[in-house]
Formats: sequence, C-alpha cells, structure tokens
Amino acid sequence: MKTSVPGPASMAIKKKMDPVHQTTSVRMFVDFEKSFGNYVVDADGNTLLDVYTQISSLPLGYNHPDLVKAAANPNYITSLVSRPALGSFPRTDFPDGIEAALTSIAPKGLKAVQTMLCGTSANENAIKTAFIWYMTNRRGGNPPDQAALDSCMAQNQPGTPKLSVLGFQGAFHGRSLCMLSVTRSKAIHKVDIPAFDWPIAKFPRYKYPLADNKAYNDAQDKECLQDVREKIAEWKKKNHDVAAVIVEPIQAEGGDNYGSPEFFKGLQKITKENGICFIVDEVQTGGGGTGDIWAHAHWNLPSPPDIVTFSKKLITGGYFYGEHMRVKEAYRIYNTWMGDPAKLFLLQKVVEVIKRDNLLEKTKDVGKFFQKELAQLQAAHSSKLTQARGLGTFAAIDFPTAAVRDQFVDKAISVGLHCGGCGEKSLRFRPSLIYEKKHAELTFDLLEKAVKQI
Amino acid sequence: MKTSVPGPASMAIKKKMDPVHQTTSVRMFVDFEKSFGNYVVDADGNTLLDVYTQISSLPLGYNHPDLVKAAANPNYITSLVSRPALGSFPRTDFPDGIEAALTSIAPKGLKAVQTMLCGTSANENAIKTAFIWYMTNRRGGNPPDQAALDSCMAQNQPGTPKLSVLGFQGAFHGRSLCMLSVTRSKAIHKVDIPAFDWPIAKFPRYKYPLADNKAYNDAQDKECLQDVREKIAEWKKKNHDVAAVIVEPIQAEGGDNYGSPEFFKGLQKITKENGICFIVDEVQTGGGGTGDIWAHAHWNLPSPPDIVTFSKKLITGGYFYGEHMRVKEAYRIYNTWMGDPAKLFLLQKVVEVIKRDNLLEKTKDVGKFFQKELAQLQAAHSSKLTQARGLGTFAAIDFPTAAVRDQFVDKAISVGLHCGGCGEKSLRFRPSLIYEKKHAELTFDLLEKAVKQI
Repeated sequence: MKTSVPGPASMAIKKKMDPVHQTTSVRMFVDFEKSFGNYVVDADGNTLLDVYTQISSLPLGYNHPDLVKAAANPNYITSLVSRPALGSFPRTDFPDGIEAALTSIAPKGLKAVQTMLCGTSANENAIKTAFIWYMTNRRGGNPPDQAALDSCMAQNQPGTPKLSVLGFQGAFHGRSLCMLSVTRSKAIHKVDIPAFDWPIAKFPRYKYPLADNKAYNDAQDKECLQDVREKIAEWKKKNHDVAAVIVEPIQAEGGDNYGSPEFFKGLQKITKENGICFIVDEVQTGGGGTGDIWAHAHWNLPSPPDIVTFSKKLITGGYFYGEHMRVKEAYRIYNTWMGDPAKLFLLQKVVEVIKRDNLLEKTKDVGKFFQKELAQLQAAHSSKLTQARGLGTFAAIDFPTAAVRDQFVDKAISVGLHCGGCGEKSLRFRPSLIYEKKHAELTFDLLEKAVKQI
Repeated sequence: MKTSVPGPASMAIKKKMDPVHQTTSVRMFVDFEKSFGNYVVDADGNTLLDVYTQISSLPLGYNHPDLVKAAANPNYITSLVSRPALGSFPRTDFPDGIEAALTSIAPKGLKAVQTMLCGTSANENAIKTAFIWYMTNRRGGNPPDQAALDSCMAQNQPGTPKLSVLGFQGAFHGRSLCMLSVTRSKAIHKVDIPAFDWPIAKFPRYKYPLADNKAYNDAQDKECLQDVREKIAEWKKKNHDVAAVIVEPIQAEGGDNYGSPEFFKGLQKITKENGICFIVDEVQTGGGGTGDIWAHAHWNLPSPPDIVTFSKKLITGGYFYGEHMRVKEAYRIYNTWMGDPAKLFLLQKVVEVIKRDNLLEKTKDVGKFFQKELAQLQAAHSSKLTQARGLGTFAAIDFPTAAVRDQFVDKAISVGLHCGGCGEKSLRFRPSLIYEKKHAELTFDLLEKAVKQI
C-alpha cells in the first residue's frame, strides 16, 4: 500500500469525471492493465488482494493469460465490431458456442438456454417466460386469442392480465422497475420508485453454527414456507394469481442469507402444487464459488427448477429453462441483442480453463480451509464477529452494526485487502476461482490486522 | 444470390440449435467473417446489400478496418477480460473515454451522461431518474425521510409512490416489464405480460407528402397535444401523477411515425408547465442516420430535453441528462455493470471515423438522393406504395397490408436486398453511415425488381 484508498490519483480522476458522469459510488479508479490474478492495482499504484472481484464477477481474476489470448482471436474481434442482433441474425458458429460454453455446464435436468446481456435482463425475461407459460396453461395450451391481442394494446384484461410474482424479504434480483418489485435488500435501492403490488414472503434467518441451532433453524424454514402458502392464497383471493416464485439460493446482496435444502425442497413442492413457475436466480451464486457451478445443485431437488438465471462470473447473462417452459411463438422473448456472442466466446474459454485446471475441486478444497479459518477468526474476536457462514469460498461474517462493518471495510482496504459489505452488517467474500490456499492465508493475516483496528 | 434465404446451410444450423436455444425468430445465420461494409454474407454464401444493419445498429457497417484495428489494442482487450463494475471501480481512463466518445457528441445543452449496457436499461434508468427527481421536487429538494425509507421496503406509500409515465400509441421503448408499459407497437410484444396502469396518449399520424397535407397534419398535432393534456389531468385526478413523458422522435419500431417540430415543442411546453420530466428516446434515431447525431436536433427546441437516451448505433447504451436531473445520493442509479468500457472504446473510434470521414455530411447528401428516389419509386408504383417519408437515410414506405409488406421483404431478400419491416405495414430503411450514392442506386434497382414481383 502506497497511499490511502482512494488516494490522490483516484481523487484527481474523480474530480475530472464529476462534471460529466455520476461519481457518488466510485470507491477507487483501477489500473486494469497492472491488475493481475487475485490482485487489483488502483490508480495510485496500491496493490490489494481482491476477494470482492468486481462484485463477484471475475471467474479467473484479472488478465488471465488464456482469456487475453482468446480475445485476440479474429472471430472474437469480428463479433465485437460487427455486433449481431442475435435473435434474428446469429453467427454461424453460435450453436457451437452455446454448446461449448453453456450446454456443457447446464444445471442437471435442464437443457435449453437463452442468452441475455445481463443478470437483470435474464431475470426480466425469465419472469416474462413464466407469465406466458401461466397464461398459456390457463388457456389450455392455446396461444393468445384475438380478444387478448386486442385488449393488451390498451393494457386491459384479458390481454394484460393481473398476475404477480412472489419474492422474499432481503432478496435482490436487479434494479429495473420489475425487478425492484421483487428486490428488498436496501431501502435506498427502492425509495421513490413505483412498484407492482406483488407479495413479499419471509426468508429464513438462521443462527450459526447450524449444528448448534437446529431446532431454531428448522422452525425458521416452517414459518417461511407457511408464509409463502398464505401469501399465494391471499393474492389468489384478490384475483392476482402468483405466476412465479423467484428466489436466490443465497441472498447475496441482501446479506448472505441461506436457505436450507429442506426449505428449497418445500418451496419447490408448493410451486408444483399451485401450478407456479419456480425460478432460481443464480446471478451471484452461479459460476463455481460455492464449489459447484450451481448453488442449487447442493439441494438435491427431486426435479430441476423450471428456470435458472445467471450472469456475473458466467460472463454472459441468460437462463436455462425446462422444455415445458419454451415459448412457442416468435418475437415474444426478444430484443435487439439477446446476449452478446463476444461474451459467449470468453465464457467458452472460462469453462475450458475451469475444467482443465480442476478449479471446482480446488475451490472446494480452499473453501474448506477458508471456512475453518473464518470460524477461528470469529472465535478469536467473538465480541466483534458473529454468524460465520459459507459454501466453498462464497462466505460471509457479521459485525455488530452497519457502522462497524463499514469501518472494517475501510480498515481492510487500508491494509491491502479489497472486500465488500452486503446486507445490513455483513462482510462478503467473493474470491475468483483461481484463489488458492496461499491467498486464503494472506486474507486471514490481513483480516486479523484489520479486525484489531476496530 | 446462390440460394433462397434461409438457405440449406442456415436451415441445418437452425435445426442443430433448436433443441438448446430458441430459433423462432431466426431469419438466417450470418457469416460475420465474410460480411464487409454494407454487405452481409449469410451461411449459404449469399451476399446481400444490407439496409437493415442488425436492426439499425451498425454505424460503420461490417468489419470496418478502423474498428478491427481498435479491437486489437491491449487496453481494449484488458477491458474485455477484466470487466469492471463501472459504478464503483472504473478504469483510470474512463473519464477520457467518456469525453472522447460521448461529451464530444452531446446533445446541445446537455453535458452529463450515464452509460448503461443497452437501450432498455438506458430507458429504465432514465425513468428512475425522473421518479427520483419528481419526488425530490415534491419534498422541496430534500432527500427521502425515514418514513419513506421504511415504507418502501414493504412497497407502501410514501416510500413507494403512485406515479406514472405517459407514453404514446405506437411507441417502442424496450421489452422489460416497465418499458413494455410504455411500449405499444405490437400486440405480440405485450400480450400476457402484466403492466403498470400508465396513460397512453395519441401520437400524430401524418399524411405524406407533408407539403400537400398541411391542414390535416396540423390538426393531428393539435389533437394529440390536447390528448396529452387530458391524460395528464386525468391521472393527476387519480392521485397517480405523471412524472415523465417518454417519446421517440420517430416511432421506429412502431412504423416510422414522425412528429413535427411544432408537436415536440408543444409537448415540451406541456411538460414544463406541469413539472414533468421530458425524456426523448433516441435509441433507434440517434447515431447519425437522420443526418445529425440526434434526431431531436432537427426540432430547434427552445431548451434541451431533460433526458436523452441512446444505444444501437452508438454502441454503448446510456443517457444524457440536464444538471437539474442529477441524482445526489449514491447507489440509487446503480447496477453491477453500469455500461461497458469495451463498448466505449469502440464508440470512441466510431466517433473519430464519423468526424474524420465527414459521415454526417455525406449521410445528409445521400439522404437527399435517397428520399428523391423513394418518392419516384412510389410514383411509379402508386397502387402498391404510399407514405414515402424520411430524414437523411432513415426512411420508410408503406404497403397496402402487412401480408403484402411481408411478401415484399421476402422478395427483396431473394433479389439481394436485406431490409426489414416496422409497424403494421411499413418497410424501414436503416443503412449504415458508410452507405454511399452507389449503394443507394443499387438499393433502388433491387427495390424496383422486388416491387414488380408482388
């Protein structure tokens, strides 16, 4: 560390940018050319071990040599400079890219996939797919009739139906108006923005360690599932049927809140009983951090979710869906870009490297070490740290208050560890898949240093 | 032309893709490596003059040598493989990129800009900005108070306000749920998807040529402005205030419907009188096709719009906004990506080429020739063609019915002209900025050939 963060160089660039672009949330300017592997280098030449990785979005860290090489491929360059409208005019090798990048990592039981530009757009289109499926079922499998087509242009029923999506307290699914209607992570995300009148159910809030709090946590599951059932019934009574339930395996932005496999099995059962689409949002959890490409793979569901959305570490946005969810008519799930083949090229290489270098197995191993160390750190500082929890290297710990957590993040950065908060008072760890034991050891040295300063 | 389109190679790839990815809207697979300039080459080796350009999204055609060279730049590659979360950790040269790519083409009177990934995301965030501004005004300039912050988490008032956005019949602003609530171009886009209860006003439908239909068209303006006034009053009465009006300079997806400068001046006046944010959506019109980077520049408004959104030809999505619209608090206009610096790099080069090669002047000149030819084509086939209209090379013409228009598009493609429909029965022309007189001559030769076949 050469300066405080943000240092004078970052501050000077910020001042320059302020007249022409929002700077309120800029933490530091990054020298991406000098950043490498698990280390981010800022404008002032400070080198930080990065366990936040551009909000959990770098599968292979900075400037991975295989990706740099892949980006110089002429076909890749063509995709960038002659950008296709993928829905209508895809590249001839698009199906090969889908196969290599996505089919090869498809969640168990799901095969078809739709690429999108980002996680929000993946969630938006997953929800649209659910509405179309729900209304098609209501019509006994028939496409929209003339009355529906006519009435939707004036946004009247039956063409524009009154349907809802059930989300959870503490959830985060994106910041478009629709996704904000199912996002309840922080007030500053939502305030002043109109929302759909959609139900909000309780999400489990476990006590850790899990083994010592089984009765409490089981009761949480029961209470939340009961709340889901009640909310579905209540909205049905209002003629505002719940067409989809959307849920994260781990509420990542909302504070790393976990649901147990039993909770999710129960949730899926409720959706099946009520003819509701079950959407699992793996935008932040997908991509390998939990030791599996998909966090929901840890639940052993009896049958796959109806839709699984992704983005971030998986480079391209998109969603996998069950064959029964496929939209039959053209131009219903459609937009200009429908994803980005350049991102698919990169994901292809990422998947190749993950397999070649056994990165999932390695992440599982480092994860075990990480979780053990995190528990020890908590034990050593039990007045400041609680609720150590995680899966693989996807981990979090709580501080007494938001203010203490924020102070800790600043201290950690000042000693050379780049980490980030989530939820009210949690600290989240989101290292890349090339994060090894030696990086974990350094992480805990730095955490120890920082925790002593608060 | 070697085969029909889609030819056997396209059909074979489609068959391969169908099990794993939606193919219903695929027209042909494109050989992007072989495509060049104004010509698109498909999987079967057919070479078509392209006046549709990936739904109006290629400013410099296919594989422009300056862009190919720019894409090999190591800084560009770094941006691709170490993708920043721009809102918090931008590249050190991000302000320079903003300056070179965007400030240099800013609409008159606007300076600040916010990049986003796509046009829909630009529109979503423009609307969020408008809501925040409207509620801040309502609070006399104050940030949200505790009552607002608390109530928004349960989606209750005052934190989650009842506000609306006024859009127009025939408009297209995107396909997220919020944008679909102001999109009314085609029923198949909207059917089965819930929408916000927001007002829909009439948009002018002019008769052409304009000079021969002045009284009729002026009456259209008056009627539509009166409808806007009434809708605003009606929604205010319901305590569902209109916070923003969003409008395209030319309803591009909805059928190339134009508003006159007088209409837009009147519309802006109404928004100012009512304290409403005036958002001009230039996602399809922006980027030079009309002979100016901004279509709204042709109106000579007395003061700039509050927000101008863009994407497509301008490579990155985003919006310019007046300083009074700036959101003061951090993390309100925010998401993981907040745009894509790689796209900003490319736009920088595009803007450089536009200026260096005088592409706006050239587009104006070719546009004059194009419009003259289009009028002549219509005169020669007046039983089949009506309503020839356009600005620069951004142009359209109408057929008697949707079926005839669709038949014509197929014929045009079969003789080697790649064009696309819009609205109910229009054909749209969206050539790139490197489209010259010789390409226009070839276009009209091919149009003539095709029109004789219907």
